[in-house]
Amino acid sequence: MRIAVLGVGLIGGSIGLAARERLDGVEVVGHGRSLDRLERACKLGAIDTATGSLADAVSGTEIVFCCAPVGALAAQVKQALAAAPSDCVVTDVGSVKRAIVEANEGERFIGGHPIAGAETAGVEHARADLFDGAVWYLTPSHRSGGILYERLHRCLVGLGATPTAIEAAAHDRILATVSHLPHVLANALVAQAAGRGDLPHVGPSFRDATRVAGANSDVWTDIYLANAGAIVTEIDATVQRLRSVAETLRAGDAAAVRAWNESAAADRRRLLESDIAGGDVHELRLTVPNRPGIVAQVALALGKASVNIVDLALAPAADMRQGAMTVWIAGDDQAEEARRLIEGLGFPAARA
Amino acid sequence: MRIAVLGVGLIGGSIGLAARERLDGVEVVGHGRSLDRLERACKLGAIDTATGSLADAVSGTEIVFCCAPVGALAAQVKQALAAAPSDCVVTDVGSVKRAIVEANEGERFIGGHPIAGAETAGVEHARADLFDGAVWYLTPSHRSGGILYERLHRCLVGLGATPTAIEAAAHDRILATVSHLPHVLANALVAQAAGRGDLPHVGPSFRDATRVAGANSDVWTDIYLANAGAIVTEIDATVQRLRSVAETLRAGDAAAVRAWNESAAADRRRLLESDIAGGDVHELRLTVPNRPGIVAQVALALGKASVNIVDLALAPAADMRQGAMTVWIAGDDQAEEARRLIEGLGFPAARA
Repeated sequence: MRIAVLGVGLIGGSIGLAARERLDGVEVVGHGRSLDRLERACKLGAIDTATGSLADAVSGTEIVFCCAPVGALAAQVKQALAAAPSDCVVTDVGSVKRAIVEANEGERFIGGHPIAGAETAGVEHARADLFDGAVWYLTPSHRSGGILYERLHRCLVGLGATPTAIEAAAHDRILATVSHLPHVLANALVAQAAGRGDLPHVGPSFRDATRVAGANSDVWTDIYLANAGAIVTEIDATVQRLRSVAETLRAGDAAAVRAWNESAAADRRRLLESDIAGGDVHELRLTVPNRPGIVAQVALALGKASVNIVDLALAPAADMRQGAMTVWIAGDDQAEEARRLIEGLGFPAARA
Repeated sequence: MRIAVLGVGLIGGSIGLAARERLDGVEVVGHGRSLDRLERACKLGAIDTATGSLADAVSGTEIVFCCAPVGALAAQVKQALAAAPSDCVVTDVGSVKRAIVEANEGERFIGGHPIAGAETAGVEHARADLFDGAVWYLTPSHRSGGILYERLHRCLVGLGATPTAIEAAAHDRILATVSHLPHVLANALVAQAAGRGDLPHVGPSFRDATRVAGANSDVWTDIYLANAGAIVTEIDATVQRLRSVAETLRAGDAAAVRAWNESAAADRRRLLESDIAGGDVHELRLTVPNRPGIVAQVALALGKASVNIVDLALAPAADMRQGAMTVWIAGDDQAEEARRLIEGLGFPAARA
């Protein structure tokens, strides 16, 4: 299998390293604007060959990873789709998904976003194990091809990641909550502390809380602008919460202060627990009509319910009208939930 | 020297361990309501002897550390001042200072607050090196005795800490900024994330940002209430900042977004740099009138300018009207700044 990585930084380089180390018979072609960086990527073993031409890079590939910064992704994906073979799946790794998915609603584009690594480091920091156990969001549209989705899903599992299907708009709202809002609050916190006449000593808990303050402006200016709508919604909601806390404090209501703090403790536990999945892996078999979007539909239904597809296989029948689909799910409860959800879509599923 | 530790948890236990390990000829008496805990503290070497009676504990001591939780501190300090010898300095370790300092404006009470350790852990987590390099705020009033201040300062340096004098109200405003506000924002963040219908995956940066969410309610309910005024001021200012960011995002103003993020990066650098002090240690000698509050006045003037007193000695003259004071300051610039500040107070200072 031939894979193209367009933009060989930390993420692109790690995709290359993991693919070359973990996938059988794979060839990784790297493309970028800096010949220096391509050479370093070659030396580090992140890519097999390098080319300054995007068209050459994607020629004959089965998967293209677009790894340009958010601000340059739209153009890169367009070029990749224009130049890539007609049976090649094109994906990206940008942290904002709705706009790029809406602009590329063909069968071949599936948006992606690995939750791993800082976006600021270079190929020197790339690691084959960067994606181990990391959620890798996939945002297929209703037109995305099943075979292409399966190929990408399987490749990401091979890289060590946990692919998780989600609708692009929902992805952007979640990322606004768990990533972009924390960045905004970290920026507000340091501004608040630095705005004092006397620069105060800050302790380890302040440093923890503000680790991401002022993150790379080249990357983050694009992210803030690309997801401005969802971020503003989060900011507004946070302002409401803060106003309500201030009211409680002004009233000196000890019981309410305690209840608010206890509920934060419970929220944090729930959030951390939801990050831990596991258990025995179960196999589910179903038959689905062989048309674009079916696999995406199944993956999205499970993703929405936070059921994690450990692996997935699709085998089109000879007449190409039907296909046998197999999904593997970790955990007894999750497997049962998956069966129920899939049957809800109209596809009877048998547990093997 | 005999030291009493009232309340032997993480902080009290660490004071005991450090004192017994690092100070010459010291005896540490522990006092608390739980005999179990006192016994454990003895076994762990945090105290020499234990007593359930506060009066017995403070009898014959030179320094009393009040280590009760914030909500119980006012009563404990009152009792300690009533029972302790007339030449004993009484201090506390609470994270809010103004109310307790205003309530105890005698010569013998000097408020304190070490920036180290979580306030929730027990004596089992106590460590002799807990305060190494940690800022230990001291909030002397204009009536605090110089000899007593010097004794406490010297003891804290012996424990490994960096005593830093500051006015109580300024301390509370700073703590509201660098500690209480981050806790409020962490609580708001987890509430926001957990309030979604779909519990989202959270990454390492979210976990960093919310590490302190829902911190021990017994401790934090008291802190939030005791410092409510300053915290509300911080919340209001943060709300203004967030509103302004939301406005910038709504306008899609790339240059303004970048400038805001760059300024956060610069703020964070400045804050971290201000935490790093160092350089050669210089000695400054001055003569001061021997009356309550003089040492506190010098310490506060330096503390306000973020000049760190590495060590301090006070030698009253035979007539007890004047005293020779020596302070040690790290760094050429800081030493020169200290000399200037001290001369500004009317005390000519010579660099040794």
